Amino acid sequence: MSLIEKPVETPERREFYEKIDSSSYTALWTVLSDIITPEPRSTCQSHLWHFDEAKAYLLEAGNLITAKEAERRVLVLENPGLRGQSRITTSLYAGLQIVMPGEVAPAHRHSQSALRFVMDGSGAHTSVDGERTIMQFGDFVITPPGAWHDHGNDSDQPMVWLDGLDIPIVSVFDASFAEEHHEDQQPITRQVEDSSWRFGANMLPVDYERTRLSSPIFNYPYERSREALAHLERQGELDPCHGIKMRYVNPVDGGWAMPTISPCLQLLPRGFKSQRYRSTDATVFVVTEGRGRSTIAGKTYEWGPRDIFVVPSWKAVTHEADSDAVLFSYSDRVCQEKLGLWREDRGNAIPL
Amino acid sequence: MSLIEKPVETPERREFYEKIDSSSYTALWTVLSDIITPEPRSTCQSHLWHFDEAKAYLLEAGNLITAKEAERRVLVLENPGLRGQSRITTSLYAGLQIVMPGEVAPAHRHSQSALRFVMDGSGAHTSVDGERTIMQFGDFVITPPGAWHDHGNDSDQPMVWLDGLDIPIVSVFDASFAEEHHEDQQPITRQVEDSSWRFGANMLPVDYERTRLSSPIFNYPYERSREALAHLERQGELDPCHGIKMRYVNPVDGGWAMPTISPCLQLLPRGFKSQRYRSTDATVFVVTEGRGRSTIAGKTYEWGPRDIFVVPSWKAVTHEADSDAVLFSYSDRVCQEKLGLWREDRGNAIPL
Amino acid sequence: MSLIEKPVETPERREFYEKIDSSSYTALWTVLSDIITPEPRSTCQSHLWHFDEAKAYLLEAGNLITAKEAERRVLVLENPGLRGQSRITTSLYAGLQIVMPGEVAPAHRHSQSALRFVMDGSGAHTSVDGERTIMQFGDFVITPPGAWHDHGNDSDQPMVWLDGLDIPIVSVFDASFAEEHHEDQQPITRQVEDSSWRFGANMLPVDYERTRLSSPIFNYPYERSREALAHLERQGELDPCHGIKMRYVNPVDGGWAMPTISPCLQLLPRGFKSQRYRSTDATVFVVTEGRGRSTIAGKTYEWGPRDIFVVPSWKAVTHEADSDAVLFSYSDRVCQEKLGLWREDRGNAIPL
Amino acid sequence: MSLIEKPVETPERREFYEKIDSSSYTALWTVLSDIITPEPRSTCQSHLWHFDEAKAYLLEAGNLITAKEAERRVLVLENPGLRGQSRITTSLYAGLQIVMPGEVAPAHRHSQSALRFVMDGSGAHTSVDGERTIMQFGDFVITPPGAWHDHGNDSDQPMVWLDGLDIPIVSVFDASFAEEHHEDQQPITRQVEDSSWRFGANMLPVDYERTRLSSPIFNYPYERSREALAHLERQGELDPCHGIKMRYVNPVDGGWAMPTISPCLQLLPRGFKSQRYRSTDATVFVVTEGRGRSTIAGKTYEWGPRDIFVVPSWKAVTHEADSDAVLFSYSDRVCQEKLGLWREDRGNAIPL
Repeated sequence: MSLIEKPVETPERREFYEKIDSSSYTALWTVLSDIITPEPRSTCQSHLWHFDEAKAYLLEAGNLITAKEAERRVLVLENPGLRGQSRITTSLYAGLQIVMPGEVAPAHRHSQSALRFVMDGSGAHTSVDGERTIMQFGDFVITPPGAWHDHGNDSDQPMVWLDGLDIPIVSVFDASFAEEHHEDQQPITRQVEDSSWRFGANMLPVDYERTRLSSPIFNYPYERSREALAHLERQGELDPCHGIKMRYVNPVDGGWAMPTISPCLQLLPRGFKSQRYRSTDATVFVVTEGRGRSTIAGKTYEWGPRDIFVVPSWKAVTHEADSDAVLFSYSDRVCQEKLGLWREDRGNAIPL
Repeated sequence: MSLIEKPVETPERREFYEKIDSSSYTALWTVLSDIITPEPRSTCQSHLWHFDEAKAYLLEAGNLITAKEAERRVLVLENPGLRGQSRITTSLYAGLQIVMPGEVAPAHRHSQSALRFVMDGSGAHTSVDGERTIMQFGDFVITPPGAWHDHGNDSDQPMVWLDGLDIPIVSVFDASFAEEHHEDQQPITRQVEDSSWRFGANMLPVDYERTRLSSPIFNYPYERSREALAHLERQGELDPCHGIKMRYVNPVDGGWAMPTISPCLQLLPRGFKSQRYRSTDATVFVVTEGRGRSTIAGKTYEWGPRDIFVVPSWKAVTHEADSDAVLFSYSDRVCQEKLGLWREDRGNAIPL
Repeated sequence: MSLIEKPVETPERREFYEKIDSSSYTALWTVLSDIITPEPRSTCQSHLWHFDEAKAYLLEAGNLITAKEAERRVLVLENPGLRGQSRITTSLYAGLQIVMPGEVAPAHRHSQSALRFVMDGSGAHTSVDGERTIMQFGDFVITPPGAWHDHGNDSDQPMVWLDGLDIPIVSVFDASFAEEHHEDQQPITRQVEDSSWRFGANMLPVDYERTRLSSPIFNYPYERSREALAHLERQGELDPCHGIKMRYVNPVDGGWAMPTISPCLQLLPRGFKSQRYRSTDATVFVVTEGRGRSTIAGKTYEWGPRDIFVVPSWKAVTHEADSDAVLFSYSDRVCQEKLGLWREDRGNAIPL
Repeated sequence: MSLIEKPVETPERREFYEKIDSSSYTALWTVLSDIITPEPRSTCQSHLWHFDEAKAYLLEAGNLITAKEAERRVLVLENPGLRGQSRITTSLYAGLQIVMPGEVAPAHRHSQSALRFVMDGSGAHTSVDGERTIMQFGDFVITPPGAWHDHGNDSDQPMVWLDGLDIPIVSVFDASFAEEHHEDQQPITRQVEDSSWRFGANMLPVDYERTRLSSPIFNYPYERSREALAHLERQGELDPCHGIKMRYVNPVDGGWAMPTISPCLQLLPRGFKSQRYRSTDATVFVVTEGRGRSTIAGKTYEWGPRDIFVVPSWKAVTHEADSDAVLFSYSDRVCQEKLGLWREDRGNAIPL
């Protein structure tokens, strides 16, 4: 069964392999079982990063380099199984960014989609396409591909957020473009909250024509998203695997808010213990509220507020909440759905 | 400008990098300019493989290993800039498969999409989902993700075709599943050409509901595709970059015939010399008819029937045809379009 | 030019017409210019209904018949040019419904889509699919095709709203189904506002699958919609024909909130005078706030709060606001867009 | 139950009705059961037109009026239940057009979609958008909304085809535009069959952008469509209600070939007797080959080549074929699907 085993190597074969190698050929049968696997089999590992440690490092970084010199003062969360690749999963990037009071992270733009999920502090701002949003704890903010964006912190505290990007996806397609703005901060031409009201009130300008795949909503405030979860909890319909899990939506088409990244927010009510679940989209979780634990392929991770953990593709996961817990998450599910690759499996029959 | 340059490394910084490394962190500013580049900047190179050499190797392989032992007796076309990765571009795989008279390449299925483009010989067959197609020179055949497929050669000649797959794409998403059929050849339950008539006659069964993203047409015969190009040539509207270039279509939605791969056939009339063109989808070309040359980022490749060459992402290309030439090609454009990454540039102002 | 003029009638022709008539044939040339017209040319007229008069009639009706005996106690607004057809435009129905304190309008369902726009009173409720919404002034409420719905008034005042339905559309397609519920009021199984939070917070349940074309949001509260208009006014981008005009959106696909009816809310700032505009979707306007006037094909209608007026297809219209004015409107634009019929024309060059 | 019964009329009520009538109001409860019916209940009737009689009338018309004077020399097939309305169903128009040798039906364009189905003679032509198609028996030809079109007959025989249009649909939306071309015949700028090869070979020009909702294929030749049915018959999967029924497809999106009309071709193998079926799309059938009979709501119609019959909305129909029979049909199903109205019911449990 050569999808699983490799044919034996004989001297004649070895000689042949060497001969064709110089003409840029390889014999498929020597690699087939590595590149087409019976199940997802990357080296991506489950892992949890404690926020307290991360924050300490970030503050230390704040003394080592300015945001301006660094372009972005970010610590990349590297998956222990994918070191040196700046990836938290095979397809996604995660980093923790700190902006110190008075600092600016200068304006640039790139093909990569980015999300910001605010983890610590409040009052810093991000600007996109002439609109500025003030970021509060738990806000989910999008900086779309190709859009100029810069950050600044006018508050008196360091501010920390998670950056989620699709860098490895853009890399595999070899489609990266990036550019610096000639000014550190782009000019502001729109009212604060303009996009929220223009696109987020279940109405759209009557003749609006979309200009990009990404959601035109800039900031999905935590206050509103959290309230939605609370209302749905009252209705009491819990998904056995997810509790109450909502996806952030692009109001223009009802699809995922981002073209390459699938962001979600979910509530695990106190005492909830989820059924086993696995899917092909390796997922990054950020604990927003509450304490509990998740077991990933048999290994248990205790988590509390602001901790970050990652579940690899096709690994069984269960969650357990000691108090009402809220998890923000993101994965590449939207890509896999568009490309016909996404698959999930639910129920306690899943092997550990 | 740290999107381009890296900050200097100081002893304090180096110490910090080492400290955080053990907690699975990396400082973004040490890698940023490598992972978010101003333009596509992979190591993928332009290259041309001569069919004659390939055929000789394939026949040699025919004596070294059976199709059955090899699962598929294929020589992978490895991009010289991406050796050891079984890739012809950063996102795509290409191989040349030979099936000897009387042989069978046993039935299996996998998440990866595959195309076959028939290059040499005729009369072998591929079976998918209970339907068998007889393959002739130039036919474009799809084996969709998840579909059982096997090949056999009842003719008296070796048969060679190009395999194009999305293996690196499935890898980056860590979503590979594969399975062997319990029989070498799946049972045949449908008439030859059933899918061509059922889905390819500009009609669809009135209550047809799609079951997959891939086109339900199994074989796009060269005879018909070539005739379409000939008719359009008569109308005389040449695209300055492409001559007459048609994409194979999924009749169910008018989109690309495959969910992850964009196959095209194009005619360059004798004497045609194309304008400079570049796009973010690195492209594999197979010469079907005619002779000419393509210049890729300043390097010229002379080509004739059955040669294969690859154009990397964002490299300028021009084609020149000495006789009416037909090129089959495939790329990841469909993925990039769905994900919002695809970009093209046309005209002689493109830098070489 | 026979698209415009009819051929002369001769005795031979007349004889022929009579002969074929008995076999259910008609000569096209005798009717062609009536059925395919150079421009929209129905008998639909512009008209304005004053709310005060309507309310007086409604209260009178309240003494004449119970909601239960009437099924719905509604006065149909019949277009003066389409009397006897229960239509306010060629394709749409409008009625004013009154529910007296303590009354119930019994549960039924039908193929016809219905919207409710609350005009007077507050605190009555509508129930759809087990969810109840409390209706306040200006709320836009949907009762989708095929959904059980009933109304009740637990307040101490009569409550009046506008009903907008697609009855003539369903008639031309001969696709009407209707059914009475066995109970006057359907059982309530969902929390108040459940659909608003489940579908209206720019999030959707992660595995939600749509079950109908209509928006799953039940009530679009005026408070939020009005606030959106106010925010956009601050940004100061006025459409010369529409002021600030927003369409109510189905969050599942970003399309119109209803499959056959296009509901909008628009703000005309004090002193705004619109450019001439015409479109093929005859439109019903309800004045929500403010005073002003609209000129339709040269005829001017003064309006104030709660008045209702109709603009026929392809008639030039301008609006003028004496105070900040808000207009709710609905038309068949969504149908015309889906069917490829919709057309608009803007600018003062439009003939009166 | 007032969806079914009307409330009694009292003198007070009658007085009220008269009073409100002058202000353009009507009491809904006096008409409700007529406009929202429990089931489709139009006056549309089943009917069959014999081609022989029609042809005789058409030839007679050929002597009464020229194509040019008539604009189009057409006998409208008026539904016996909808006389005076130029409709074959509540939403669709059908006519039989004759073009005599040497005649021209002059160029015009209109919002209404038109299909031509060739019934008698061969060799006349239709031109659309600079392309001319030669029409053969059984060809299905589209003249899209807004496209200039003219017909001519260079053969030596009268030519007859069926015209199917959406005139009543355009009327209900009050969106009719029409225009005469300044020349009888538009200039020809494209090769014969250009659109067939450009759009119909399961390929599309790589950068094609659609310009209309209608299919860009101009002529769906009977030869190819008939062959598709024959191939599918060989596979032997018969739908119990439809035999083998295929819909003509727009290759750009896989949807119906026309934006408002659903054209199909179906094969009833010799001896086939269908199960009872009903749907909300009243359907016009044209017998292309074979003999048999259809029973519609208990009434049986015997048919042979070129006969035309109509099945009203929601009436039970069965077909029985004495020889291999081919039926072309068209209905408004595409509209009803887009608007959420379409419903079907299959099986012998359907009441007659």
